[in-house]
Amino acid sequence: MINQSFMDLAFEEAKQGESTWTNPQVGAIIVKNNQVLAKGHHEKFGGPHAEVNTLNHLENIKDAEDSTMYVTLEPCSHFGKTPPCVQKVVEVGIKHVVIGMQDPNPIVSGNGIKYLQDHNVEVDVLNQTGGINEAYIFYYQNKRPLVTVKYAISLDGKINQSNHERTILTGKAAYLDSQNVRAANQAIMIGQHTLEIDDPYLTVRNQDLDFPPIRVVAVYDVNKLSQDLNIFKPSGAKLWILSRTESNRKLPDNIEVFVSDTWTPDKVVKLLAKNNIESLLVEGGSRIHADFVKEKLVDKIIIYQAPIILGGHGLPAVYADYPSSEIKFDKVQITQLGDDFKIESRRSE
Amino acid sequence: MINQSFMDLAFEEAKQGESTWTNPQVGAIIVKNNQVLAKGHHEKFGGPHAEVNTLNHLENIKDAEDSTMYVTLEPCSHFGKTPPCVQKVVEVGIKHVVIGMQDPNPIVSGNGIKYLQDHNVEVDVLNQTGGINEAYIFYYQNKRPLVTVKYAISLDGKINQSNHERTILTGKAAYLDSQNVRAANQAIMIGQHTLEIDDPYLTVRNQDLDFPPIRVVAVYDVNKLSQDLNIFKPSGAKLWILSRTESNRKLPDNIEVFVSDTWTPDKVVKLLAKNNIESLLVEGGSRIHADFVKEKLVDKIIIYQAPIILGGHGLPAVYADYPSSEIKFDKVQITQLGDDFKIESRRSE
Repeated sequence: MINQSFMDLAFEEAKQGESTWTNPQVGAIIVKNNQVLAKGHHEKFGGPHAEVNTLNHLENIKDAEDSTMYVTLEPCSHFGKTPPCVQKVVEVGIKHVVIGMQDPNPIVSGNGIKYLQDHNVEVDVLNQTGGINEAYIFYYQNKRPLVTVKYAISLDGKINQSNHERTILTGKAAYLDSQNVRAANQAIMIGQHTLEIDDPYLTVRNQDLDFPPIRVVAVYDVNKLSQDLNIFKPSGAKLWILSRTESNRKLPDNIEVFVSDTWTPDKVVKLLAKNNIESLLVEGGSRIHADFVKEKLVDKIIIYQAPIILGGHGLPAVYADYPSSEIKFDKVQITQLGDDFKIESRRSE
Repeated sequence: MINQSFMDLAFEEAKQGESTWTNPQVGAIIVKNNQVLAKGHHEKFGGPHAEVNTLNHLENIKDAEDSTMYVTLEPCSHFGKTPPCVQKVVEVGIKHVVIGMQDPNPIVSGNGIKYLQDHNVEVDVLNQTGGINEAYIFYYQNKRPLVTVKYAISLDGKINQSNHERTILTGKAAYLDSQNVRAANQAIMIGQHTLEIDDPYLTVRNQDLDFPPIRVVAVYDVNKLSQDLNIFKPSGAKLWILSRTESNRKLPDNIEVFVSDTWTPDKVVKLLAKNNIESLLVEGGSRIHADFVKEKLVDKIIIYQAPIILGGHGLPAVYADYPSSEIKFDKVQITQLGDDFKIESRRSE
């Protein structure tokens, strides 16, 4: 017998894992005679998995015998940073495992389920994501990070009053929300024009993260960047500079330079995929956005819209001097944020 | 004693007047001993006013004696297309008149109230608009029509894929809504570029109107327009051509040519005001929108937003090669229309 409310509880547990970084959020509970005996979740990248944490929360490990485990993701079957969970599940005598979804990571996918079944554990798979691990699932299904393009615009679709200045359009609520959006991504990228006009830190300033997003900047020549840019200030967040040339000076430990003749969106995304980065937030400028649109590398869009019309020659949020190439979106969600509103949408399948 | 629910009923009546054209929508009810004896509204421009219609709906005109009239707008005191209502109200012996709001039209404003009071009728004014007569009120308060700029855009603020083509972005629900928006305006304007690229009829196609909006097109030279344009097809709707030159041929009766060296938004709005036009809908293109923004002549904005990103060099909804000039909006209302959504907002005070 499967009880959906136990699985919902396991998803609630999963969501408490705030530092899982490129690992999925996973939650588990152990149930016997319709009673929840223990709950647990994966807390931190490199730390114990949800299954192990949950077993550790049992008063007596013997209670696991003949119990049912609800776990949001297929238990792992490989030696990674920790020993395989399925082995432990079998060892303690759990007789039934209800799984939210099969792990899309090919190292695990199906192997965990098979191991359990081969060891006479009853297994049910519900095909539920619980609304979590969007980027993780996308990454393994598509072999590349989920790309979100984010911008703040006026009601006439402009990001500033003119090409060479920064215009703050939105208010505090939108600012705080945008910090949360940054925190939810593993990498944040901007182009050289935005780097020099806005001079951002590209950090998450409203919370303390164990794994802050990697800051990625695409520039022409790393050696021609001003050392006074805020991005070069000491920071716990890594900085990846995508340049056409090697750096001719020694850079701090948190900075890495990657060299290529041209940094197209496709190349950027491949570099990130190679480094197991599952999500990328693109934050400008207009030309970089257009390049990602042109290469159909936009999976999500987040727009903060200010109730202002700028008119005149302000720069559109997405612009390049080449033909348009339509991308359709759906599941549009609109949220009021102070005087502004947020439009969030996922690319149509 | 004033009963708000009677005033609400009078506003409901008012809203049934669908052909009042530049006249306000007005509703009235007659109440005696807490009973509604008659209801009425102004039905059609040139026809009897709400007060008279309501009195005509009484079974016996003697019932008006010592009754209370709830009327949404101050009764008129002048001889216009019909004799003054206040005279009739006094004549039939109404003892109390509850008025939604004072008429902003200076011919009436305050005079109707004074006439009633001078004839021993008790008068109360509630300062309620009931959400109707937006353009009528604006026109008399500002001595010019209420200007609404309307466009359909992609999520990146573009109206088309490139400057010289028409791109249909939104679906059927947005189309039907836009027809209702046209019907609610007394004039609709476009520029020559939109006229030639889109070749619109600029008519209201989903309903039969007694007073269709006047179609206004701003062009360089009326004599150089193709006679095949849809706007020249026979139509019950007037067409005003704002040109730099007189027409050198005889035009059909529904077409009028106005001549000026340059047609700035200010000049357009003054021309309309002189002709008692209270509302103008500006429907493109990008440059005309920018000109209205520059002259701060945008009072409302209606945006149909399609869940599409166009990217590349599509044309922004508002664009001209001169500095931006911000206009702030508030009271943003967002409505889902099929896959699209509608953003409606009024300029901040």
